[in-house]
Amino acid sequence: MKKVAMGPQTLIYPMPATLVGANVNGKSNFMAVSWCGIANSEPPMISVALRHNRYTLKGVRDKLTFSVNIPSRDLVEETDYCGITSGSKVNKTEVCHFKVFYGKLSDAPLIEQCPINLECTVVHILDLGSHALVIGRIEETYVSENCLTEGKPDVNKIEPFAYIPTTIQQYQALGEVVAKAFSIGKELKVKG
Amino acid sequence: MKKVAMGPQTLIYPMPATLVGANVNGKSNFMAVSWCGIANSEPPMISVALRHNRYTLKGVRDKLTFSVNIPSRDLVEETDYCGITSGSKVNKTEVCHFKVFYGKLSDAPLIEQCPINLECTVVHILDLGSHALVIGRIEETYVSENCLTEGKPDVNKIEPFAYIPTTIQQYQALGEVVAKAFSIGKELKVKG
Repeated sequence: MKKVAMGPQTLIYPMPATLVGANVNGKSNFMAVSWCGIANSEPPMISVALRHNRYTLKGVRDKLTFSVNIPSRDLVEETDYCGITSGSKVNKTEVCHFKVFYGKLSDAPLIEQCPINLECTVVHILDLGSHALVIGRIEETYVSENCLTEGKPDVNKIEPFAYIPTTIQQYQALGEVVAKAFSIGKELKVKG
Repeated sequence: MKKVAMGPQTLIYPMPATLVGANVNGKSNFMAVSWCGIANSEPPMISVALRHNRYTLKGVRDKLTFSVNIPSRDLVEETDYCGITSGSKVNKTEVCHFKVFYGKLSDAPLIEQCPINLECTVVHILDLGSHALVIGRIEETYVSENCLTEGKPDVNKIEPFAYIPTTIQQYQALGEVVAKAFSIGKELKVKG
């Protein structure tokens, strides 16, 4: 198989589409973030990469709390809007009609319409170059009750979407189940 | 909308299914990692969260290089296998029939069958609790030539899959395109 070297690229598939929230200058603000990932298990932590000049980052640095909200596909327009506008110029919460609620933390605004909400306190902020990598401890997780099945989050009800850089940049829903995790590999284990 | 607090959870959707590689004790080894994310743009960086006792982590710490490989869905069995076995006990490269190649770095093993390969040098290792968060600078990106369309990576040819914790833990393919990114939000921008 021939390989083509393309230079250093930030290229992984799929990336989540999330809305990261913070209170800035006394108001809730949200930005679209796909450059994030789970960073630790015990205690639960998440990392989000934010460009240094982002308005949201001011609030994160000021209050040392933030939220990560997972939008469902019916919020794709709002999510994209939060990625192409700045809270320094518009009130995105108002434009998007987000209903904001708070959990344990007083300055981590959570979006009621998003089926999953994580509220986080800042543990580390690393300056890596263009971006600040903010590592947050997940203090609480909220799930919309109508997205649960037998008490567990149900991806078919959550309807998250991915951000996919490809020949064009697009948002994609999840598709068919390929295999059961921690299970399909057992067949190779027998052979191995 | 009623929200249910579920305690701190490592819950984002979707998460990528990747194979992180390193040379350990003179041999290539790969583990399944979904807890990863892009960490910086300029220069390109990625974070991967590895449990402290992982065999792969020994190689990462020893050589200060690693790889991130994006498998296509036809490698779901091998990917899962690499997640449920340890390189301390089996030679996963042999069992999975991975063809290993090297790029710029002498100790970041790349899997030829995976359509996307990132080779990385370690920039930071943070001890966050259960996991070491390894932050790597992406030194080069390789894409299988047959996964390009007009010189760009084509997600329809790459066929990546996501790791989805839901009522059960499963791997899911990508589905339909929901919207064009940096575009659909413009409609709200007019309203805003």
